[in-house]
Amino acid sequence: MLSERDNEATTRVGPGTLMGNLFRQYWVPAMLSSELPGPDSDQVRVKLLGEELIGFRDTDGRVGLIQNACPHRGASLFFARNEDCGLRCVYHGWKFDVTGQCTDMPSEPAESNFKARVKARAYPCVERGGVVWTYMGPREDPPPLPHIEANQLPEAECEVSATLRECNWLQALEGDIDTSHFGFLHYGATDPADATPGTFLYYSVNDRAPRYALVDTEYGSMYGAYRPAGPGELYWRIAQFLFPCYTHIPSGALGHQILTRAWVPMDDDHTMFVSMGARSGKPVPGGNGRVRTAAVPNGTGWTQRFRPPTNANNDYLIDRESQRRDSFTGIQGIPTQDQAVTESMGSVLDRTRERLGSSDVMVIRVRNRLLEAARALDESGLLPPGVDDPQVYATRSGSVVLPEGADWLDATDGLRRAYAEHPDLNLSLEAR
Amino acid sequence: MLSERDNEATTRVGPGTLMGNLFRQYWVPAMLSSELPGPDSDQVRVKLLGEELIGFRDTDGRVGLIQNACPHRGASLFFARNEDCGLRCVYHGWKFDVTGQCTDMPSEPAESNFKARVKARAYPCVERGGVVWTYMGPREDPPPLPHIEANQLPEAECEVSATLRECNWLQALEGDIDTSHFGFLHYGATDPADATPGTFLYYSVNDRAPRYALVDTEYGSMYGAYRPAGPGELYWRIAQFLFPCYTHIPSGALGHQILTRAWVPMDDDHTMFVSMGARSGKPVPGGNGRVRTAAVPNGTGWTQRFRPPTNANNDYLIDRESQRRDSFTGIQGIPTQDQAVTESMGSVLDRTRERLGSSDVMVIRVRNRLLEAARALDESGLLPPGVDDPQVYATRSGSVVLPEGADWLDATDGLRRAYAEHPDLNLSLEAR
Amino acid sequence: MLSERDNEATTRVGPGTLMGNLFRQYWVPAMLSSELPGPDSDQVRVKLLGEELIGFRDTDGRVGLIQNACPHRGASLFFARNEDCGLRCVYHGWKFDVTGQCTDMPSEPAESNFKARVKARAYPCVERGGVVWTYMGPREDPPPLPHIEANQLPEAECEVSATLRECNWLQALEGDIDTSHFGFLHYGATDPADATPGTFLYYSVNDRAPRYALVDTEYGSMYGAYRPAGPGELYWRIAQFLFPCYTHIPSGALGHQILTRAWVPMDDDHTMFVSMGARSGKPVPGGNGRVRTAAVPNGTGWTQRFRPPTNANNDYLIDRESQRRDSFTGIQGIPTQDQAVTESMGSVLDRTRERLGSSDVMVIRVRNRLLEAARALDESGLLPPGVDDPQVYATRSGSVVLPEGADWLDATDGLRRAYAEHPDLNLSLEAR
Repeated sequence: MLSERDNEATTRVGPGTLMGNLFRQYWVPAMLSSELPGPDSDQVRVKLLGEELIGFRDTDGRVGLIQNACPHRGASLFFARNEDCGLRCVYHGWKFDVTGQCTDMPSEPAESNFKARVKARAYPCVERGGVVWTYMGPREDPPPLPHIEANQLPEAECEVSATLRECNWLQALEGDIDTSHFGFLHYGATDPADATPGTFLYYSVNDRAPRYALVDTEYGSMYGAYRPAGPGELYWRIAQFLFPCYTHIPSGALGHQILTRAWVPMDDDHTMFVSMGARSGKPVPGGNGRVRTAAVPNGTGWTQRFRPPTNANNDYLIDRESQRRDSFTGIQGIPTQDQAVTESMGSVLDRTRERLGSSDVMVIRVRNRLLEAARALDESGLLPPGVDDPQVYATRSGSVVLPEGADWLDATDGLRRAYAEHPDLNLSLEAR
Repeated sequence: MLSERDNEATTRVGPGTLMGNLFRQYWVPAMLSSELPGPDSDQVRVKLLGEELIGFRDTDGRVGLIQNACPHRGASLFFARNEDCGLRCVYHGWKFDVTGQCTDMPSEPAESNFKARVKARAYPCVERGGVVWTYMGPREDPPPLPHIEANQLPEAECEVSATLRECNWLQALEGDIDTSHFGFLHYGATDPADATPGTFLYYSVNDRAPRYALVDTEYGSMYGAYRPAGPGELYWRIAQFLFPCYTHIPSGALGHQILTRAWVPMDDDHTMFVSMGARSGKPVPGGNGRVRTAAVPNGTGWTQRFRPPTNANNDYLIDRESQRRDSFTGIQGIPTQDQAVTESMGSVLDRTRERLGSSDVMVIRVRNRLLEAARALDESGLLPPGVDDPQVYATRSGSVVLPEGADWLDATDGLRRAYAEHPDLNLSLEAR
Repeated sequence: MLSERDNEATTRVGPGTLMGNLFRQYWVPAMLSSELPGPDSDQVRVKLLGEELIGFRDTDGRVGLIQNACPHRGASLFFARNEDCGLRCVYHGWKFDVTGQCTDMPSEPAESNFKARVKARAYPCVERGGVVWTYMGPREDPPPLPHIEANQLPEAECEVSATLRECNWLQALEGDIDTSHFGFLHYGATDPADATPGTFLYYSVNDRAPRYALVDTEYGSMYGAYRPAGPGELYWRIAQFLFPCYTHIPSGALGHQILTRAWVPMDDDHTMFVSMGARSGKPVPGGNGRVRTAAVPNGTGWTQRFRPPTNANNDYLIDRESQRRDSFTGIQGIPTQDQAVTESMGSVLDRTRERLGSSDVMVIRVRNRLLEAARALDESGLLPPGVDDPQVYATRSGSVVLPEGADWLDATDGLRRAYAEHPDLNLSLEAR
């Protein structure tokens, strides 16, 4: 439960808001590289942290993210001509490069050199692992990119996807750090008698009310949810929240799962869910060795890119007969089940009326960390976690069976650090 | 004409508003029984007095009306599983019965017994005559249901329907207590020469500006509109407003017509028009003896259930040639004609700019009674008419020819009391 | 660049606003005559200066423009019956003539004569050149119509069209007084080497940054944009802004072009662009000698009449391949190109963030004139330009080649006055 003031503070991300300022300390995923397939390809409308921006790839392949409204008279640069290393506004021909600098102003007499004094708001962009990252903050020299493993694998091993979630970023993210919903929303219909003994699913459905251990970390917070496994054993699900909007979920096997999920605020009511992971399946024979992108934008509007066909308008295609009979939700697919419940809370969940239980410790903890960090930044300029310490993002999550009585942190340290073993990663062990 | 303040006061129905508080003293129709066809059937989104609720029928056939947002984390109970005497939220499996009590909380350790302390907002429901009634008010022991005859007939004799009116409840209701529109909106094209002499229609179109008698009653207000009939006779149309949102219209023959219309506020801008009447036509051979329901919901959204296919989006399919030629409005059907004019006033009619005439006496009177009752409740807790006197609703309306000079109240007393003669009604004459 | 206050002041047109009051001093185009094809034809929803009005043609052919809401109880007069010299509200039969006077009130006893005291808000209308003009201002005796030549040609020589522009009127208008966009938005892909030497296009694309001369006039402001033509010659594009919302654009040959464009505010976010011009092409053989109207309304809603099929919803059907290859914008047609850039600025352009150059002198000047005139009216009641001087509208615009060193005003005086030479015009030279 939050006060109305705290609920506003944790959810609003526009320019000048408390959380908007916090987000602007970090690099954030802005788009997928695949949305800009080649030099001078079509530009894209990008809503990010409440700002309207135009993403484009210039003739030299560099990515730009520039204010939508031409600085001259406000025409949208979505209609601009992407040519010869810049966007040329079609209204009067003013041209801007990826830095936002006006490089040509043919409607004005050449001698005025007015163009030198005109600069559009533009944010630096870097591509890595199929994702376009941008920094929308105040520093001249942006901080380093976070050392997110899933985003730094060799391209042939990466898989990235994007989906629209039509609600506030925080309630979407909260679904990821709430392990207890797993046995209901996704496996509520699974009879313990039907699960194969010894599997993770078996433990999950035999005890749907796990206990929790929780620890704050350099990157955010981590929890372990545990319940009985075999004799003298506990089944642990270990997951992480990483500032400002990442999660490592516990679904895979700890030490093997390489997956980071980003809940990027487009605006207060729309979230771009970006999943970055190790590629599943075998590389395609004759493939080009690039990032596999499991997402195709489906429109040019500000917030409707990547909107799934199954959505609130059709009640997520709920099948009531199936729900009654065998599927618990009647909604097909884990992502759509998550989408349905988080979107059904409304654009911005009213957290003043919640009744939180012991299974919500991680949700509560993460809200508090966000609030504390945002207020510390606001009041004393203290940088939030990880901004200048990219190596703290080098950690893995997942499920594991441990002996009863083992210290979960000590016992999983190596598995969580498995990261360091990948020979191709750009990360020095020492820095960690 | 109302001041802006009074217009707001009479039209707004959300929690805490003056009229919202008045409505919450009464049982109100919430849905049709047929919307919940059997035990554990699909739940329904119900917008009522500005609140978002989920209607459902449990395994034992009881009807529940419960807050949309799960008390835990706010997921919509529309997606809940309707199972074993309760709605189970699919997010974390919390389950609520028709009283709103949390009866199962499998995501929490059993020993916490947290569930005993969690209760969802839920309103008691009663079914009668094909209608689900609910009480959203403050009393522990709700008042009795109103003794509305049309709602208490044997089921095989009942007919009930529901329609969406896309405007405020009051302007929709005002159409029902405004007899003078009958000769224009519905019969404006009827030439007096074409009407059969001696029929009610004949009198109506021969004098389209009747005089009015008006009286306040225990249930609200009643008027009689009169005009010349045969020699030495007057044709009377007698109709009633009954607190808080019922009308008895004068269309049928006084003493024979059994019909109550309810203008139930879904929110300030949407009204559910529920018609409860004696069944027309013969019972269907081999029929099951249940209430006939002439309405099928056409969607699952909050306000679009029962939206007619002829609506503002298509200008009510007005046929201008027909309007010019022979139909006055060019709009087919009396209900659609009423819908067109009341919806065309806008969501909430601006009553500060009206020019009311002598034919609007009943409209003026009803507004005043509503305002007086709502303010008396607010200022001194005085219960509004009929709350604890259900028998006052036992009255009939309709048309009748009386001798000139007769006292209309005395002369129609028996016909209006015809109610009492029905052998099956649950109403003691004495109580009246 | 404008302050936020000035931006509001120049763009808002509703009742009581600064610019709304200025507009209400003038006759404004309200609809096309062709929208009301004959006596008692279907009425039309007209949004004008933020007001909801119903346009109709009565039995005698007179045009009325009357408040949408019936003065009685607020039903929309869109559904009224257009009969026998008035609109009869279908709710209770009250009838109003083109002056707004209630002429029949059959729901009230005849002796009350209440109808004499009820008058609907109605605005006087005059038809000329295929356009319905209205005066929404405070004067009992409206001023004369403006002597706009294109609107006063013999009907067989007139052509008029209407199009919706989905943005504020001022930013739509500003496109017309901004000659420098011509060489980019419309001819940005034209290589100077491909233009025929000696044509206006040749001069335009050989120098896309002309110099400007500017002068205030009795009707508003005029500019001349000049650049080199042949040896010792300058190519001049001369265009005008005329209070409150007219433009004469420089596209044709000065002295020959007869064209006035009106940017009529429907409300703050919707503009009706009315083009009035000399008819192009030959008269249709057997034609009826009436105004040719190149516009068909495509709906009955308040603001969607005349919405082009190519619009923001489909990104103006931009063809990115064509844009890359040969068309500069990828958008077909000069009007659609103008529509795309002005609508892409948003409903009301935020003028606090512009960076205006020397090519924007006319835009800056016109904003200042509008602000000065609106404030002078507000503060001291000074009538804005042209209200009572209709003859000042008698002027032409267009392109012309002049010798270097010639005074552009003196040298073009005759061509701009060519107006006076038309034998059929209702304008006395003396008055000018």
